[in-house]
Amino acid sequence: MVFSERISRLKSSLIREILAAAQRPEVMSFAGGLPAEAMLPKVEWADMPRGIGQYGMSEGEPALREAIAADARSLGIACEASQVLIVSGSQQTLDLASKLFIDPGTEIILEAPTYLAALQSFQLFGAECLSVPQEADGPQLEALRQRLEQHTPAFAYLIPTFQNPSAVRYSEAKRDAVAALLDEFGVTLIEDEPYRELVFDAGSATPIVSRLKKASWIYTGTVSKTLLPGLRVGFLIATPDLFPHLLRLKQSADLHTNRVGQWQALQWLGTEKYKAHLSELRDFYRVRRDAMQVALEEHFAELADWNVPQGGLFFWLTLKQPLDTRTLLDAALKENVAFMPGEPFFAKPDENPGYLRLNFSHISPERLGEGLSRLANVIRQAHLQNAA
Amino acid sequence: MVFSERISRLKSSLIREILAAAQRPEVMSFAGGLPAEAMLPKVEWADMPRGIGQYGMSEGEPALREAIAADARSLGIACEASQVLIVSGSQQTLDLASKLFIDPGTEIILEAPTYLAALQSFQLFGAECLSVPQEADGPQLEALRQRLEQHTPAFAYLIPTFQNPSAVRYSEAKRDAVAALLDEFGVTLIEDEPYRELVFDAGSATPIVSRLKKASWIYTGTVSKTLLPGLRVGFLIATPDLFPHLLRLKQSADLHTNRVGQWQALQWLGTEKYKAHLSELRDFYRVRRDAMQVALEEHFAELADWNVPQGGLFFWLTLKQPLDTRTLLDAALKENVAFMPGEPFFAKPDENPGYLRLNFSHISPERLGEGLSRLANVIRQAHLQNAA
Repeated sequence: MVFSERISRLKSSLIREILAAAQRPEVMSFAGGLPAEAMLPKVEWADMPRGIGQYGMSEGEPALREAIAADARSLGIACEASQVLIVSGSQQTLDLASKLFIDPGTEIILEAPTYLAALQSFQLFGAECLSVPQEADGPQLEALRQRLEQHTPAFAYLIPTFQNPSAVRYSEAKRDAVAALLDEFGVTLIEDEPYRELVFDAGSATPIVSRLKKASWIYTGTVSKTLLPGLRVGFLIATPDLFPHLLRLKQSADLHTNRVGQWQALQWLGTEKYKAHLSELRDFYRVRRDAMQVALEEHFAELADWNVPQGGLFFWLTLKQPLDTRTLLDAALKENVAFMPGEPFFAKPDENPGYLRLNFSHISPERLGEGLSRLANVIRQAHLQNAA
Repeated sequence: MVFSERISRLKSSLIREILAAAQRPEVMSFAGGLPAEAMLPKVEWADMPRGIGQYGMSEGEPALREAIAADARSLGIACEASQVLIVSGSQQTLDLASKLFIDPGTEIILEAPTYLAALQSFQLFGAECLSVPQEADGPQLEALRQRLEQHTPAFAYLIPTFQNPSAVRYSEAKRDAVAALLDEFGVTLIEDEPYRELVFDAGSATPIVSRLKKASWIYTGTVSKTLLPGLRVGFLIATPDLFPHLLRLKQSADLHTNRVGQWQALQWLGTEKYKAHLSELRDFYRVRRDAMQVALEEHFAELADWNVPQGGLFFWLTLKQPLDTRTLLDAALKENVAFMPGEPFFAKPDENPGYLRLNFSHISPERLGEGLSRLANVIRQAHLQNAA
């Protein structure tokens, strides 16, 4: 059997395997990124018109495109509904962007760490990944300038607001500086914002695309983190030079996004009901974030450093004594605790040992302490073995 | 702006443009392939569990995979639920198969004509298309053998049952012969069957994949033609050597298919309610097929030849005096009638003039005669101009 060349780059998904192992009910899992079941809103279907069952437009439902454009304008993004493409979850934006830009060897700029599933999509298409180290307030600007001066990347893929996995929120200054650099070098920005609305602490986060003056851009988001991921409804907004190509790629990928999910999303976007739901969601997750912080202080203060995430679903821990955290997985699962190793979030995993991503949205607060205590013990055991 | 090399092969979709023009209410459209609005079944949502809103498995809902495997086994396809992948409409199967097999220059075998959106997907990824002429009972076997002897295609993509556009149903003999040839040369079969259930006249059509003894295969179908296309729920079944790769490609494409549509599809598959609906659907479309045949005899007997389709949604006309039917579109739209030119259904459009695809499912029978009369006049005018 002869497969395409790209299949040699199709990696088995470590996350899939961890999540499968973590499904045993006795496992306390910090591994996934699932919204809490209790916070899935009750939705109504009775009013959905029968005609929604028919084929739809590849662009998406006109009213939903209008609502998303209006929402984006309220964030400062100058755009029209004609620039909005409804996608089958924002993961699809990554697939479409890969197809639009990436040939084997095409250079792209990523944060280090970056979103694992984006990295996998870009690498599948053969991208040469240029990494920019992530600091607490955004990317290291000198490194970004150097990559732009020494290379000709097709785009920069950035997650400036509560990045999965690092939880970093770019500062105002870094947002401005990144926009200015991309304008200076004429490099397209793909700005991925699934976690924008999951904000627990005040602070500005105007999108970087709204600060661009010349560079092309794709801005992408989803209702998966705030409404229902099972709907598989996301969106992208693109500059007019990119939009027609993305639309044709969308049509070739799956004709159009399911209309049932689009209709449901439209029942929520921009409504008072949605605002109230978002507010509840933030309160709920803030409590879990705070409980996790307390438990981490108790069990991990000697083992790791971290910043308290101001939004999103994850803590990102840096071990004081680095080790390849992938080697901890088997021991952790034996102790019925699951976590996500940090290495796969880097284009060069082996050069970046010593990080853990811990989800705080899914596990109930009363099980937190026990789970973190077990995980800390697994790490201590590994340190002892390494020292022996 | 530097795009990937494949974007140079991303064609503007003629169908999109025709369908857009055909949306004016005064246009009588034979162009699309939409199910009749009146036959979209009324569906219930009240019993859908809230948990369906959560993220799901990339493979699809376990119960739906079981139901599809059982249905396939009843067609003679030896398979397990573990070989079933739920996709976002069967169009996605083409995207995943393109990624799995096609590098620029990869040879593949197609029927001539073949399904337009498949051709576009394969060509986007850079396939070198080897065409096998379609006859009334299936592909020309000598041509197929010759392609297999002289080339090393990655797969053969075939639509043996009521193909869009030609409406051909392969005979039993050709199904056996094709299976034997693919086994002999060890070439993977992708068998696409969206129209299997839309059958109006009796006759066997056991899938070709069920006749293979050695070759790998992907079998794909959808609920779009029989239930609701707006759900975007299709499936593929693949041999175990292909399945794990397709699953990872699915995950990279959009994580998983929307669960709301999957849940609804599961309420129908294998039920008495579904059988009754399919029976109504066949009766409804058979009446329209027969009305179209009468109207065609009246208006096109001197202009074209065709076979009466035994299933599917289309008549495929061969003009007695060939001309590039794309050149008829403007004149037809001026007369407020739309159709689909045949040329784009061939890998080499310019070498295959003189075919028209006419849909009979969407237009109401009382408007048929007027629409076909106008279209016939447009063709006669073109013949006169060409003769002048």
